[in-house]
Amino acid sequence: MMLPTLMQCYRDQVDEEIVRLLDSHASPLYNMLRYHLGYMDADGRPASHPNGKALRSSLCLMVCEALRGDVQQALPAAAAIELVHNFSLIHDDIQDGDRERRHRPTVWVVYGKAQAINAGMAMRVLANVSLMRLQRLGVSTKTLLQALSLLDQTSLRLIEGQHLDIDFERRQAVSSAEYLHMVKLKTAALIACAVEMGAMLVDEDRDCIQPLVNFGTNLGIAFQLRDDALGIWGKQAVTGKPVGSDILHRKKTYPVVYAWDNSGGRDQQDLMRFYGSDSIDQAGVRRVLEILENTRARSHCQERIQEYCQAAMLEIGQAPVSSASRTSFQELVDFLNQREF
Amino acid sequence: MMLPTLMQCYRDQVDEEIVRLLDSHASPLYNMLRYHLGYMDADGRPASHPNGKALRSSLCLMVCEALRGDVQQALPAAAAIELVHNFSLIHDDIQDGDRERRHRPTVWVVYGKAQAINAGMAMRVLANVSLMRLQRLGVSTKTLLQALSLLDQTSLRLIEGQHLDIDFERRQAVSSAEYLHMVKLKTAALIACAVEMGAMLVDEDRDCIQPLVNFGTNLGIAFQLRDDALGIWGKQAVTGKPVGSDILHRKKTYPVVYAWDNSGGRDQQDLMRFYGSDSIDQAGVRRVLEILENTRARSHCQERIQEYCQAAMLEIGQAPVSSASRTSFQELVDFLNQREF
Repeated sequence: MMLPTLMQCYRDQVDEEIVRLLDSHASPLYNMLRYHLGYMDADGRPASHPNGKALRSSLCLMVCEALRGDVQQALPAAAAIELVHNFSLIHDDIQDGDRERRHRPTVWVVYGKAQAINAGMAMRVLANVSLMRLQRLGVSTKTLLQALSLLDQTSLRLIEGQHLDIDFERRQAVSSAEYLHMVKLKTAALIACAVEMGAMLVDEDRDCIQPLVNFGTNLGIAFQLRDDALGIWGKQAVTGKPVGSDILHRKKTYPVVYAWDNSGGRDQQDLMRFYGSDSIDQAGVRRVLEILENTRARSHCQERIQEYCQAAMLEIGQAPVSSASRTSFQELVDFLNQREF
Repeated sequence: MMLPTLMQCYRDQVDEEIVRLLDSHASPLYNMLRYHLGYMDADGRPASHPNGKALRSSLCLMVCEALRGDVQQALPAAAAIELVHNFSLIHDDIQDGDRERRHRPTVWVVYGKAQAINAGMAMRVLANVSLMRLQRLGVSTKTLLQALSLLDQTSLRLIEGQHLDIDFERRQAVSSAEYLHMVKLKTAALIACAVEMGAMLVDEDRDCIQPLVNFGTNLGIAFQLRDDALGIWGKQAVTGKPVGSDILHRKKTYPVVYAWDNSGGRDQQDLMRFYGSDSIDQAGVRRVLEILENTRARSHCQERIQEYCQAAMLEIGQAPVSSASRTSFQELVDFLNQREF
């Protein structure tokens, strides 16, 4: 399944914006950022590796366009959101010890953890620098300050979510409700922010903001739950990870916390034992998959994704967008709902 | 030698500002920040450990006052600068593997490296959130945007400096010129920013900014060179570190790069050998101290500190500050020049 054409087009424009921003900075520090974003190889040669779905920045531009705004004017905001997302990926990879992302070694593997911390921080600060360019594109000072504030508040929520996620690792039990709260902070907040940013640049009075933000939040949760399903049942050829990968790493993702809440007896005891121990072997992975099967965690997860996607589209119905735009949003939601990567 | 009374008074006000800001955030994430700043113990109980000299925020308020500005209005800016400084300390400690700061375990020792990365990032984002409060205190939108931009640009310079500093570790030779360039980025940029911030809140037309910024840059370099001298010849009882501490950790600080540039024969070969190896033992530390003695690195370092301090005070002479203020600046410079901690 391919990325919708519209998103590919947005992604290229956002890449151009980020490349320009990086090129206005001379220090070799920024080569780490270029490497992470796929613009450069580890040996310093220019490259163009595909750097992810760019979902968040595409959403920002899509909303802007749906409200009949100027996509060119919104590019610094879309770039800022992509930079915030990517700072969190660079730091996540250090925090989780992940050695590979998008089929390439992670930043810390190439440059060391100490420098990768710098790379993530520089990426985050550049997001604000990017937003500042809105001023030269005619965005009002009032809206610029709102955008800066939104990006900072969203970053804090994202870090709060990441803090919770890491805290969950050392805890034995996590409930579905706690997990969904974490997902709202760690994933949905930035996706909702992308939507809000795209809208606030067009609609200074913020009349149509709320349904769009709700759309982003619902879509964000659906997106994470789909990620969780792929982390357990995804096809290795597409995701680059073996089946059961997240189980092997004892990640307490949605299907697992759901099974925890909805299992009993031997199944629950085994889950407790596996997720309380230091590692899970292949036999353990098979046993956890069996428990997930017993509790119907997979189909429940898929049902929840459907629910959140439907809720998202209901919110779009409340927003003042054309029916053509509505079709684009539906296409995006369908893609995210069914994606295999 | 005690902190000048004026600085103590400023520090208390900045602490109050930061405590208020932290208290408006509920997540346990912020307890790590409270711990680092000495407001809380590791077990979550309130505390009031002295949290450093708060030089940067004090300078911001001192300049504001010297230009007859309103110190109360400048508090969010001073707090923001202190937060930027402290994000860099939290991340530095992870990057250097330092286990103790201000006579307490560092954040990563208490909470783990993964969470300490989050703590540093949250601290940096909060700096911008703090600045936003300037708006409610009557600062114009134009000045607020300038302040936000200054803080972001300064943060990038700071990270570029930190990137260079870590890069120096893996290099065998670093020249004095390269070292001073790094110090301008890593240390002097934020001190100059503190001064500029204090001035720009009062002088919207920025007429008197340049000499004050130059004052900050010179003072910043002097401050770092004094730090370097204390890292080698400081008294353990005051600094909390043994004599030769920075040599033991093979830090290429100013006295060492100066000795490198100005030694020859056996002395230079030995320096090359020690700083190219994986560790230096106590005999090695004594030998390096001898080489520093041979090249007169200590007195040269002290002379350079004097020069930068004098240059700083010459710049103050160009700024429109009262003679009473000039005396305060001189007192501060003398304190920093002679400090033992």
